[in-house]
Amino acid sequence: MEAKKPTAILRMHCPDKPGIIAVISDFITTNRGNIIYLDQYVDHVNGVFYMRVEWELENFLIPSEKISEYFNTLYAMRYNMTYRVSFSKRRQKMAIFVSKMSHCLYDMLARYVAGEWDVEIPVIISNHPDLAIAGKQFGIPFEHIPVNRDNKEEMEQREFEILDRYGVNFIVLARYMQVLSENFIERYPNRIINIHHSFLPAFVGAKPYHQAYERGVKLIGATSHYVTTELDAGPIIEQDVVRISHKDTIDDLVKKGRDLEKIVLSRAVEKHIQRKILTYDNKTVVFS
Amino acid sequence: MEAKKPTAILRMHCPDKPGIIAVISDFITTNRGNIIYLDQYVDHVNGVFYMRVEWELENFLIPSEKISEYFNTLYAMRYNMTYRVSFSKRRQKMAIFVSKMSHCLYDMLARYVAGEWDVEIPVIISNHPDLAIAGKQFGIPFEHIPVNRDNKEEMEQREFEILDRYGVNFIVLARYMQVLSENFIERYPNRIINIHHSFLPAFVGAKPYHQAYERGVKLIGATSHYVTTELDAGPIIEQDVVRISHKDTIDDLVKKGRDLEKIVLSRAVEKHIQRKILTYDNKTVVFS
Amino acid sequence: MEAKKPTAILRMHCPDKPGIIAVISDFITTNRGNIIYLDQYVDHVNGVFYMRVEWELENFLIPSEKISEYFNTLYAMRYNMTYRVSFSKRRQKMAIFVSKMSHCLYDMLARYVAGEWDVEIPVIISNHPDLAIAGKQFGIPFEHIPVNRDNKEEMEQREFEILDRYGVNFIVLARYMQVLSENFIERYPNRIINIHHSFLPAFVGAKPYHQAYERGVKLIGATSHYVTTELDAGPIIEQDVVRISHKDTIDDLVKKGRDLEKIVLSRAVEKHIQRKILTYDNKTVVFS
Amino acid sequence: MEAKKPTAILRMHCPDKPGIIAVISDFITTNRGNIIYLDQYVDHVNGVFYMRVEWELENFLIPSEKISEYFNTLYAMRYNMTYRVSFSKRRQKMAIFVSKMSHCLYDMLARYVAGEWDVEIPVIISNHPDLAIAGKQFGIPFEHIPVNRDNKEEMEQREFEILDRYGVNFIVLARYMQVLSENFIERYPNRIINIHHSFLPAFVGAKPYHQAYERGVKLIGATSHYVTTELDAGPIIEQDVVRISHKDTIDDLVKKGRDLEKIVLSRAVEKHIQRKILTYDNKTVVFS
Repeated sequence: MEAKKPTAILRMHCPDKPGIIAVISDFITTNRGNIIYLDQYVDHVNGVFYMRVEWELENFLIPSEKISEYFNTLYAMRYNMTYRVSFSKRRQKMAIFVSKMSHCLYDMLARYVAGEWDVEIPVIISNHPDLAIAGKQFGIPFEHIPVNRDNKEEMEQREFEILDRYGVNFIVLARYMQVLSENFIERYPNRIINIHHSFLPAFVGAKPYHQAYERGVKLIGATSHYVTTELDAGPIIEQDVVRISHKDTIDDLVKKGRDLEKIVLSRAVEKHIQRKILTYDNKTVVFS
Repeated sequence: MEAKKPTAILRMHCPDKPGIIAVISDFITTNRGNIIYLDQYVDHVNGVFYMRVEWELENFLIPSEKISEYFNTLYAMRYNMTYRVSFSKRRQKMAIFVSKMSHCLYDMLARYVAGEWDVEIPVIISNHPDLAIAGKQFGIPFEHIPVNRDNKEEMEQREFEILDRYGVNFIVLARYMQVLSENFIERYPNRIINIHHSFLPAFVGAKPYHQAYERGVKLIGATSHYVTTELDAGPIIEQDVVRISHKDTIDDLVKKGRDLEKIVLSRAVEKHIQRKILTYDNKTVVFS
Repeated sequence: MEAKKPTAILRMHCPDKPGIIAVISDFITTNRGNIIYLDQYVDHVNGVFYMRVEWELENFLIPSEKISEYFNTLYAMRYNMTYRVSFSKRRQKMAIFVSKMSHCLYDMLARYVAGEWDVEIPVIISNHPDLAIAGKQFGIPFEHIPVNRDNKEEMEQREFEILDRYGVNFIVLARYMQVLSENFIERYPNRIINIHHSFLPAFVGAKPYHQAYERGVKLIGATSHYVTTELDAGPIIEQDVVRISHKDTIDDLVKKGRDLEKIVLSRAVEKHIQRKILTYDNKTVVFS
Repeated sequence: MEAKKPTAILRMHCPDKPGIIAVISDFITTNRGNIIYLDQYVDHVNGVFYMRVEWELENFLIPSEKISEYFNTLYAMRYNMTYRVSFSKRRQKMAIFVSKMSHCLYDMLARYVAGEWDVEIPVIISNHPDLAIAGKQFGIPFEHIPVNRDNKEEMEQREFEILDRYGVNFIVLARYMQVLSENFIERYPNRIINIHHSFLPAFVGAKPYHQAYERGVKLIGATSHYVTTELDAGPIIEQDVVRISHKDTIDDLVKKGRDLEKIVLSRAVEKHIQRKILTYDNKTVVFS
């Protein structure tokens, strides 16, 4: 990618009112910020206004560390906004959790070393030792934490220590076959991205390809979503499908599904890295 | 389409055994039938062999009215086959059931008058008078049968009389908003095609677009299936999806869904007309 | 659709400068317009800013007939904008040109009578009499103008008279098999929408399905575009494709293509009706 | 995948005649081969019959090394067949040619180590040293052959030596940015698979994403094909597209294209590995 000037990114939502766009874009422009991205959306059913603005910081009159405070004082309180200011210079740290299947992991590692993503991957965590080789190949620490139903609390404590040690901002479950505890999930709200190998809400839970085969569907899907405490029910980030036919065995579904899973997961992770996702009411607004 | 010579179509399934293809294609070729289509599929999980063969009757030595008997005697009993022999010359008669929405109906009528389908549409039946205009436009008798929960049995009797009078072979529910009785469904096994406006098995039942909106999915779907006595659970013939985003209101879903519904339904109806569908074990084999 | 309050729609583009969004949204909000849609896009390569804003006129302080003048004086001249103000209350009039194929025509007429489109279709024009029946069915005047290479100038004069008489704003070529003269095309800049049955720029010109068959492609496409004086080279509005295989004959391509053509054309027409298209430099910006 | 019994695979085409299916399936069955796959297709335009049959060798009465001879004597000469017999036990050897872009290479290597493909990758060849790291990571010899316009003949000689030394059966050009000589291409007829980053035949040659951007298309594509001496004009194996919009810069096209390229190339390579492709008349028959 081309070199980009440092930018600030504002994501916000608030009760819809006339004039919010004008007010915010005026705030940025008056202070000599050059807006390079603005997308907004009004949910007329619930009366909520969503916006993402990105502007170059080069000549911006307000120092970066003061932007959030100023914005809060001048606008957020007045309009009852929920907002977040991020900075393109601050590279996020992403941990990958895997079990035994490698396709999603390799897809992300290949993007990583090719420089496709503006992210850092400091650690891979797994409940099985099988994919340690991938860590070695790509020079990323691999931590084997043999979690199971009986030792989950203790093992998750070890995971927390690792995640904290590496300063991890968000987690990607790349076909990780363990259910996280509520405690774990609540520690990373909207910061754990999972890939489920079905077109949710169809085929929740275990063995979705078997379920799909049994039902005789003509398309199979994959769904990437933020993890919440209810299984496979969190805000959906991205979905896609692929056509199958009566000729496809369950093995064929697994095979076709792999390509789908890795692409759908990587699209979702990329949107998260680009800070283009807003969540509200168990749904996502994904800006383009 | 080009003029086609009259053909016979054999659809069959039986326990899988070596040599069935050789035996059947030899039967046809030896009797001077020219095979113009042969597709077969083995379900190795359940050990079932499926086949569709079509051959030109021009020089075929066995008279058409005897083919089924000969085939039964020589092969079907021996291999424990379930089979059906159809003839391209026998045009099927298809009734369309509608309520108030016109998009699926018009899509089929437009294909009908353009000669896309080798079928006859002798009658349109509706529980509302609204679409009588479409019958008038296309010169097809329109029967208004105001069925509701309380008079269903009586009204369905009237429908049976109409269907029998017109010699209807199969029925298409083109966004027909009434649930048929078990009695009705059992009268037309694998001969009633419905369009459900979701990617089944997600969002069974009423208001699937509302359900999809609530769940925040990123694709919406439509499913065409044979009607069985369990709601929205019959053998799926065809499905497809279209991408939506957070910007889409329920009205937008309804709008995008209409194009999907009509295309998915028409694809399924076409396969049925072409006698390319085999059903087994609540699933379909749809030959290409 | 739900009843909508009357709105004004501004589409504009100009050399990109900081602050344009703020200035325009402030103009609308200060004058008590409620913005219900705002989408903008910056072409950083060419330094062009594009925007579409829609706002409710209910309490807007500037009378509708004065908006364009005020906007021009206050902003357009200052920022060197090319712009257009439209009003949702003013229903556009659309003429459909056809030859012998009916699928695109029926698809649009079905949408028309179902009230899907906020448009008026006052006339159908054809170089063949075959589809007069469709005009009769849907109660729309059908004008048979037997244009050919030798009488084109004269026949187009008759078409102009008809188009003027009905106050036609834009024209849809629904598989119309005649090439329009330069004179005709220049009379309706960015107001003639064509459907070409290939994925342009592949297979320009005659018989694209034959060309596709010859080349052995695995997908076929359809392209809707504004007509310019260079054949099949105008700004593309919408494209889509469908999968084919070696099994498909040219007849099969024609058949699969029909569904594609009608959907792609109708999507493009709908965007035009909604005034969501901006053209610049032989390309389109199509707002969502 | 599950363990599979050793099979023989026959791919053939010949002038279409009645009875060929019966004759061949009878040949296999009579000699106690269990047919596990049979697909055939008749090109009625050119009168050519194509077939792929696969059967288990376990109890087959004809020794593997004699099958081709027997088949030739008994049928191929009689029906004027072009045919090839392959054996599932014989693992093919595939060389990958790359330049600097890694996405297609990593996608294939990830499949390779996961055991998705029944193939051996003995060597990676590149005109640049950049991707030597990938060879090291996955333990595959990496040969740097700095070919350019002036030294092509000499460098290709070195490539031939390497390919021969490793016993390479076919070659995959994974975004390899050099044009091969006619001499090279003719050495591997229908054995060099390329990925071109456009929907061929649109945007032949250099910089197809730039061409696509200039033309303002709404979808971009990727095409995998066998390499012939005419640039980007060989038999197409697989194609797919992805939706873009006016918002996408050339960099965005490159980015979206990468996912498309790797999936399309891998699908084509997999079909080649499975010996499911027949070529005839610059087109492919790709069995499912």
